[in-house]
Amino acid sequence: MHTDATPVDIDTGNRATPSPLLTEQDLKSAAARLTGRVLKTPLLPCEELSLAFGCQVLLKAENLQHTGSFKVRGATNALLARGERGERPSHAVTFSAGNHGAALAYASRRLGVPATVFVPPGAVATKIDAIRRHGATVIEGEDFVAAAQRFAERNGALLLHPFDDLDVIGGQGTVGLEVWQALPWVDVLLAPVGGGGLLSGIGAAFAALSPSTRVVGVEPAAARALAHAVESGGPVSLPTAPTSMADGLNAPFAGTHTYHHVLHHTHQLVQVSEEEIRLAWIDLMRATRLILEPSAAVGLAALRTGEVAVPAGGVVVLVLSGGNTDLASLGAASRAV
Amino acid sequence: MHTDATPVDIDTGNRATPSPLLTEQDLKSAAARLTGRVLKTPLLPCEELSLAFGCQVLLKAENLQHTGSFKVRGATNALLARGERGERPSHAVTFSAGNHGAALAYASRRLGVPATVFVPPGAVATKIDAIRRHGATVIEGEDFVAAAQRFAERNGALLLHPFDDLDVIGGQGTVGLEVWQALPWVDVLLAPVGGGGLLSGIGAAFAALSPSTRVVGVEPAAARALAHAVESGGPVSLPTAPTSMADGLNAPFAGTHTYHHVLHHTHQLVQVSEEEIRLAWIDLMRATRLILEPSAAVGLAALRTGEVAVPAGGVVVLVLSGGNTDLASLGAASRAV
Repeated sequence: MHTDATPVDIDTGNRATPSPLLTEQDLKSAAARLTGRVLKTPLLPCEELSLAFGCQVLLKAENLQHTGSFKVRGATNALLARGERGERPSHAVTFSAGNHGAALAYASRRLGVPATVFVPPGAVATKIDAIRRHGATVIEGEDFVAAAQRFAERNGALLLHPFDDLDVIGGQGTVGLEVWQALPWVDVLLAPVGGGGLLSGIGAAFAALSPSTRVVGVEPAAARALAHAVESGGPVSLPTAPTSMADGLNAPFAGTHTYHHVLHHTHQLVQVSEEEIRLAWIDLMRATRLILEPSAAVGLAALRTGEVAVPAGGVVVLVLSGGNTDLASLGAASRAV
Repeated sequence: MHTDATPVDIDTGNRATPSPLLTEQDLKSAAARLTGRVLKTPLLPCEELSLAFGCQVLLKAENLQHTGSFKVRGATNALLARGERGERPSHAVTFSAGNHGAALAYASRRLGVPATVFVPPGAVATKIDAIRRHGATVIEGEDFVAAAQRFAERNGALLLHPFDDLDVIGGQGTVGLEVWQALPWVDVLLAPVGGGGLLSGIGAAFAALSPSTRVVGVEPAAARALAHAVESGGPVSLPTAPTSMADGLNAPFAGTHTYHHVLHHTHQLVQVSEEEIRLAWIDLMRATRLILEPSAAVGLAALRTGEVAVPAGGVVVLVLSGGNTDLASLGAASRAV
């Protein structure tokens, strides 16, 4: 069933902004930093979805990225960019039990920077294992965001926000750059939205390189931080904590930078229901033979709502954000369909 | 546990052969026929396996191919090559409950040739569904191989053998051609072996283009048709029916063409146990975030035995033959590890 949540049509007219927007040069600098450090993931044509939607559907497979998600782009770019500006961190810290935590751990180890990741109590054991395996110290506890901030202040460490950081957004934007390099004539691109870092970076890339491409952000209706920010005129916390099965998208608020990027560079925000996500997730894994996390399937869920205009015979790109799912959970999820 | 089966070291010295070997031109003709009809699948670097083996491990991801396996290359090439030689079939027939059946169905529909696929009684429902979905008629019954032969004779239809056909082998060989085009300096390539079509085609490609590349075939010890042929001096039936969980590799005998190709162009044949396959299968899916069938994991299982010499820092390619596995079975398999 499709959710009743109304899609947000975003006025993309230019306006004064208190927050800087990334430029083409920012994205190209990020791409240069990431060369040889992250994978240029394949852009895979999907025949089954192309037939289903009457257009050419391609999938940017960031589940095949190092650490299994696009997040390693932002973390790596941020550490390197800080270094170039003479702010090379002696220690990197973040708060995340998910893909950003593992990505920061991975990037830090490769750049020789110690990393500490604060996670909430009861975080999934396999996710904590992944962060540890990439070499970071994991500290579990209540108020893990505040604990990370205190730790950073006390130790003079860099606190790297999961999404509200221009260097992080610039790194994620290289996903858009690579899509455009592989295929400069994309009609519609759909990207998952949690705090908005990925969408912001990709939006900046297409605004610079192919402004006629419609960049669409897709949120779970159960985790609509960006839509709430747009409706509220700024990034404010959701009234209740987000609860989507697409756990990578459960940001409780948008960021200042991501809010402004989305406002300027995103053409449409769509919300999808939990049931739409679940069905799209299973169907997408079956159609692609890729292991995906539910977050990666919100683009397909949005296409199926019919709310995203797709020109017949046009080119549509879905960004598959990550693939960190336990094999055991796939069996259970597929049997429930 | 590794099986006690001894690896077969194959004398690759030139010798008189009663069966023609594919030439570089055959493979290039096949590649030209397949352009735009099959995917050039990605050759994915795998950091986790590279670290584990101290070399650069890359994966040729044929699970991402149309129909989810390399088999569509051989089927498509065979139908087109027959047509070029004035033997365009009015109808295509085969015997296979697996990937070759689905591949022939797919290729036939796209080329406007009716197809009938004979399958054994009790074949897996999802596999039969896949063959039907691609447009072929499915006939289930005892003696399905003989039934297919009778059907072909009676109807003047082309009976397309799953592996012992030079056009089929030529199509599968384009996997090798693409690997070489993407990376001309491969030290070792490991390919799964059932009846030997894939290994034969890849062996022919590397013999022509990069003879210093060691081409290694990997069989389940429970389905060692090629090793049995080499030991017997020709393709004879296994004494007992093969029973590997890598069901794509359960050929009861090698072919005449595949036997001669393997004899001339393969440097080593290795056998792996069922337990080695099962563990490699789960670990490979976890490391790659690709949905794979057990057959695709025999190369990793062979590397782990230590029987395949890998130069430190060298380049090793594993051919991932297919990804047709039910999601439900992944959960069960992973919990059993």
